[in-house]
Amino acid sequence: MSREPVERVVPHFREELEQLKQRLLVMGGLAEERVRTAMRALVDADADALEAVVGGDEPVNQLHIEIDNRCYRLLALHQPMATDLRAIVMAVKISTDLERVADLAVNIAEAGRRYIQHPPVKELIDIPRMAEISQSMLRDALDAYVQRDIQLAQAVLNEDDTLDALKTQVFRELLTYMLAKPATIEPSLNLILISRHLERIGDHATNIAEDVIYMVAARDVRHHGAEPR
Amino acid sequence: MSREPVERVVPHFREELEQLKQRLLVMGGLAEERVRTAMRALVDADADALEAVVGGDEPVNQLHIEIDNRCYRLLALHQPMATDLRAIVMAVKISTDLERVADLAVNIAEAGRRYIQHPPVKELIDIPRMAEISQSMLRDALDAYVQRDIQLAQAVLNEDDTLDALKTQVFRELLTYMLAKPATIEPSLNLILISRHLERIGDHATNIAEDVIYMVAARDVRHHGAEPR
Repeated sequence: MSREPVERVVPHFREELEQLKQRLLVMGGLAEERVRTAMRALVDADADALEAVVGGDEPVNQLHIEIDNRCYRLLALHQPMATDLRAIVMAVKISTDLERVADLAVNIAEAGRRYIQHPPVKELIDIPRMAEISQSMLRDALDAYVQRDIQLAQAVLNEDDTLDALKTQVFRELLTYMLAKPATIEPSLNLILISRHLERIGDHATNIAEDVIYMVAARDVRHHGAEPR
Repeated sequence: MSREPVERVVPHFREELEQLKQRLLVMGGLAEERVRTAMRALVDADADALEAVVGGDEPVNQLHIEIDNRCYRLLALHQPMATDLRAIVMAVKISTDLERVADLAVNIAEAGRRYIQHPPVKELIDIPRMAEISQSMLRDALDAYVQRDIQLAQAVLNEDDTLDALKTQVFRELLTYMLAKPATIEPSLNLILISRHLERIGDHATNIAEDVIYMVAARDVRHHGAEPR
């Protein structure tokens, strides 16, 4: 199960694995940027910027395909073992997560487009805060993957509770508005949907963080806390 | 890139791959059953049955871990190539999709629990219909994976449009109720959330179907329609 034979036969394995990780970071940066742009466009009620997010999926999709191909090439040519094997299979999963995050930015922009058709329900404070937290969770989860940093991964899992609490708060507050003033029902619904999309971005970061802990510590936090396997 | 050496060295590879697929089908059946149970409990306003869905995640989670372990063992011991490699990495992704579907059944049951605190908004027709479609999409996507059936995978992608149209219809109808009668706002919100959870189950089926087409036809429908790679 040693990985020495791989490195003897194919000296570039480490470099290619490093490149793969760098490309994942680039993809993560792009996905995060799309969420940030969608959120700014929502806060500024900027219809053109929202439109640009809806139509701007291509670079992330291209990276998704490129990263998948890199992963399968590494698996087929180098036949890695143990942690390297898990790291590469994880990269396939992470690129899928990041692609969905970019899709969620589109969903946010679509709901934003509907939201700005109406007078604003309220000043947006908690929702941009949710966006910041979900973006920072995503960034930390990717860093935890690249650096195999279990503590950072654990911090991502803890942040998810903050995001969840904000989601509940947003829901309750908007429900109050809707009950008090029927004209706010439709725009409030779009804000609730946006808060759910942001929650899901946090879920994707959580998925990555759980897999990092699994990969590094060879234990499965996904369903059993800290129980050893 | 022939797989002959693998089969010469390890004669049980085909059997183990077959077992892996069977376990995925079992997991898919369990996940689907949880969605069905949640939906029936919602329609019957059965608080105990909703509670059972919320607390009943364990068997699916166990299968998730078992299937992941099977995949990594197959990859490490047999070092498969080409389509087999893709099929096994896909199994890792599919088991994650199925685990999320089971989580969505929990989310449906949680929203259902809140829904039945209020008088019913309307007779539930479109939402159970959405549940049926999403379950059948999931079943077909798994069958397409096991049988490497591109046509069946394509049919799953087509069904997603039906699900999307129903989701929009549910949203519009409930919005009308909410605007007409504020007492329906809170329960209607829970129905809207449930319809979004069902849409996401369809998304998971779609993900699997897209990957099947990618695996079998070695082309990427995920971002480029039928364009060859």
